[in-house]
Parts: sequence; C-alpha cells; structure tokens
Amino acid sequence: MQLLIGEEKQEIERRDFDLLIIGAGAAGLSAAIYASRAGLSNIVIDGSVAGGLTLEAPLVENYLGFTAIPGTELAKSFVEHTRNYTTILENTRVITIKKGEKFEAETDKGKFTSRAILFATGTKHKHLGIPGEKEYFGKGVSYCSTCDGWLFKNRRVLVIGGGNSGAIAAISLKNIVSEVKIFEFMPKYMCEDAYVKQIKSMGIEYRQNTQVTEIVGDGKSVKMVKYKDRSTGKEYQENFDGIFIYVGLSPQSELAKSIGVELDQRGYIKVDRSMRTNVERVYAAGDVAGSFAQIIVAASDGAIAADSCYRDLYLK
Amino acid sequence: MQLLIGEEKQEIERRDFDLLIIGAGAAGLSAAIYASRAGLSNIVIDGSVAGGLTLEAPLVENYLGFTAIPGTELAKSFVEHTRNYTTILENTRVITIKKGEKFEAETDKGKFTSRAILFATGTKHKHLGIPGEKEYFGKGVSYCSTCDGWLFKNRRVLVIGGGNSGAIAAISLKNIVSEVKIFEFMPKYMCEDAYVKQIKSMGIEYRQNTQVTEIVGDGKSVKMVKYKDRSTGKEYQENFDGIFIYVGLSPQSELAKSIGVELDQRGYIKVDRSMRTNVERVYAAGDVAGSFAQIIVAASDGAIAADSCYRDLYLK
Repeated sequence: MQLLIGEEKQEIERRDFDLLIIGAGAAGLSAAIYASRAGLSNIVIDGSVAGGLTLEAPLVENYLGFTAIPGTELAKSFVEHTRNYTTILENTRVITIKKGEKFEAETDKGKFTSRAILFATGTKHKHLGIPGEKEYFGKGVSYCSTCDGWLFKNRRVLVIGGGNSGAIAAISLKNIVSEVKIFEFMPKYMCEDAYVKQIKSMGIEYRQNTQVTEIVGDGKSVKMVKYKDRSTGKEYQENFDGIFIYVGLSPQSELAKSIGVELDQRGYIKVDRSMRTNVERVYAAGDVAGSFAQIIVAASDGAIAADSCYRDLYLK
Repeated sequence: MQLLIGEEKQEIERRDFDLLIIGAGAAGLSAAIYASRAGLSNIVIDGSVAGGLTLEAPLVENYLGFTAIPGTELAKSFVEHTRNYTTILENTRVITIKKGEKFEAETDKGKFTSRAILFATGTKHKHLGIPGEKEYFGKGVSYCSTCDGWLFKNRRVLVIGGGNSGAIAAISLKNIVSEVKIFEFMPKYMCEDAYVKQIKSMGIEYRQNTQVTEIVGDGKSVKMVKYKDRSTGKEYQENFDGIFIYVGLSPQSELAKSIGVELDQRGYIKVDRSMRTNVERVYAAGDVAGSFAQIIVAASDGAIAADSCYRDLYLK
C-alpha cells in the first residue's frame, strides 16, 4: 500500500505515481485494477465517495454477470475489488493540474505528481434553469431518486425527463410514493422499450410533449409545477410534493481542457479507441469521454485506458 | 420466449428476428441483454457451448465487481443472466450467410432470417505448425489448460508461449502437475508484471528466446520436445508428458468477410467506436473486432453494438 489512511485524518505518504486516476466510478476503478496488475503505481482520487453514478442506480440489470443488483451493492463490490490493488482517496477535490515533465495535481489534500493522467471524471446532472429550481433544491427538488426518494413516502412526486434514467427513477419511486408521473419534453417515449412496458404495467402516467416552466412553493417546500402542453400551447398547473429532475448530464471536463485536452462540441473529451486524448500520456474513460453511458462500458474504457498507459510508459 | 427447446431435440419455432447474434461469449451475451431490453427480437447462435473463452480462464481477477472467480463460474453467471431475456442456441454452426433485403443464415439446424447481424465470433487458438503438433493433438498436445490440465496430474508439462494466457495456464497447471515450464519465443517476459511475480514466486521456469521446433512421441503419446536457444542457436531436447500451446489467437471472421465486411491486415473485423462495420446493419463485438482481448471489453462491445443496432433499426 502506498498510503496510510486513518479514520479521522488521511496521512498520505506517497505523492508520486506512474498514473493519477481522477474519478472513482466504474471507469476509474477498473482502470486502477488493470494499471496495478500491469505494474503501474497509481492512486484514485475522487471529490466525493467512491462508486460514481453506479451508486445512484436503484437496480442494475444489464451489467453482464449480475442478473439484478442494487446500484449501491454493485458499487460496493467495485470498490472492494479495487481496494485489493490500490488506494482510493475519497472526498478529495483536484483544484488545478499543471503539465510539465510530470503532471502536477494540486488538491485540497496537497500536491500529487504523476507521469500520466486518466480523466474518469464522469458527468454531473444538468439543470433546467427554470424559476424555483434552485430555490427549492433540497426542499422538494432533487436530482437523485435513490438518495432522496424515501423523503416522499406516500406523497406525490413528478419526474421531469423521460429518458432511461428518468424512467428508472419513476419506476423505483413508484414503490415508495403514493403517486408518480413523468413529464417528457419530446413528443415520444425517450426510454428503452423495456422501461415503457414497466411504466405502463405499473400505471405510471408518461406525459409527452410537456414543458415544465416553473416550480412553485410556499418558501419552505415545493407545492406545485406550472407546465405547458407543447402541442396546444395551453398552460396548466399541478400539485406535487417532490420534483425529480432527469434532463441529462454534462461532462466534467474542465480540468482536462485546462491542460490542452480537446473536447467535442458538447464538451466531452475526445478519445480514440485506445482512450488516448490528443495530449500525450493523458487518457479519458467512461461518461466524460462521451462513451455510451453504461456501467459496463465505463469499466471497459478504464481497462483499455490503463493498458494504453502501460504501453506508453513501458513498451515504447 | 421465441423458441421451445427440448432436452433431446431442439424445436425451433421462430425463425425471423431483428438481430441475429453469432457467438455466445461475453460479447454476444451482453449484446443479447441490451438488444432484448431495447425491444429487439433476437437469438444467439453458437457453434459450441455458451460462454466463450471465459470458460477457459482458470481464475478471472480483473472483471470489475468480481474480485476472483473461476472462468467457468463467471461464464455460467453470464449465460444465466442472458437466458432471462432470450434464447441461446448452442452447438449450432452457421454455414453460410446471404445478404438480401434480409440476412439469411443457413445453419446445421436450418435457416434463420434477420434485419441485422452481430458477429461476436471471437478468436480461435493459433497453431505452431511444427512437426508432431497435429499428430499428438489430444495425445498430449492441448490448447486449453482448463479443459485438459487434470489429465496431467503429477506429470511434467510445458507451456509454449509466455504471454498472459500462457502465464495464466502455467500458474493454474502448477497446482495440478508435478512440474511446469514456460518456453517463450521472444527475449523477454511477454506477460503482465503481476503474472511475472506469480511465476517467480511459484518457481515456474520461464525460458526466454526459445523456439520449439518439434513435438516428439511414441505414436501413442507425447514424450518430449526439441527446441533451439535463439541466442546461441544451440539445439536441445527435454522430456514432457503434456504440451500446452498458447501462441496467440486468430479471428473467426470468414463469414463476415463473405458478405463484404472489411477486415484489417490481421483478419480482424474493422469497426468504429459504435461497433458498426462498413456493411449496413452488420456489427462486430469482442475479440473478433480486434478489441483489447478482455472479458469486460467484450461485454462492453456487445452492449454498444446492440445500442447501435437499436438506433439503426428503430430511430432512423
């Protein structure tokens, strides 16, 4: 082990590595396993707890080998697997990265240097940008049904956004709340067929072509939303106690950009099939690399990135 | 379920699908799960038993979420997971494919048609092409330590080829046989650092720069090998009871080629990041697509290919 981590205080002994992995989701953790097995010294740093977005999935049914497993459990198995090989430094934010002969990452727990960097920084939830959204965040507005669903036991909730993640959120909320509806902006189902079937069989209303324009409350908590039927232009309002917003994700690619890594038009890191970016010894994996946003894909990306790094550092 | 499969006789009711998946390794099985969940009718056809090369891995330690699991068990969990969604037709060889308005696949269990095809056909073991190799196959010569290792209990075996798969074979054989050596053609270790360490700690001899030139037996079984030290040119012979050949893999891409799919110089199917080939509605995933030959990567490839197929068939 390179680090000694106490319960209260993290004593970080080693500060220089072959590979610095930023992000402890499926991509970063899989990369750490592959990097370690290839003999690369490495550390995984995450601004939050280890596990990434897998932690937010109520039930994962499409990660080959696990027929059905709660996201929290799957994430736990990822983290345990990885801790056999390397150190995961949680709740540690990378503030700046400098590129010289080595990379220098300034974090709120001090400086680290490395020969190579992997960005496995993922995505964060997009906001709607409508009145009331910011004001009532934590007072009825949430971006994570797994985290906050239980707060609305036996109450009425709305999921805004009917893509896969919105659909999954609604399906899992249905077991907790008294009523759940989905409002989707587009004039069609935006989630997989399997979810459409579940939504229908559970009697969840999926309102298409619907634009939520305002979240209204009494100052203390959410009371209702105002929305527009996009086909008629008519405006309505409806009472809800909780609003779960699932309108997409945006890539956390600012740090990568700051050292010259090329992004695509949507802000995702550009990589080739080997997960190399345009900057030598800089790699990206998982959601931030614009990959198909699935856990199995992120894990694969991480493995590929670590292999590419090993080749660049030791086989060239 | 589209098919009714009896124990003795397979009664195949349905013959037409959205997606025909050829190969029931990690790539094909993951693809089947994703395709099914997206609402694509599909079937998986394999010339052998379901599970692919995962079946041959003695112990898998780098598939994120499973710290250490025998390949046979991991493959079993893959197959069980997939059977919740679709039918896997085992021991069924695809003989020819025709490309028309639909694809027509002639198999030794009759004809199937589909709107799209996924090649998840993997690779097969390469041969050395030296005297005795063919003659003693099954009489001491093997390409699968998991399958045949126990036949050599308390006897002396040689692994030819010291890449990752050869190293893994030797490590697992060590627990069964009385002695195991590795002969590697190249003048260096060709396996991951983690394996080098294990090999050393287990006292397995890893002979570099060594070319095996002939496998010699008494007509009934293997007795020894003749080999050359490539640094000195000197020739030697050594007694062994079993020879495990791990000198690489070649892609099973002939069927794909027959319908105009482009291959690279080594014979692997050319794909883009979405796993599309140059032929419309034809995809490839896993080892046959020249991906990093890892189980997690194959599973990811399959998921991506199924998503691309869904988009091409239903969102265009």
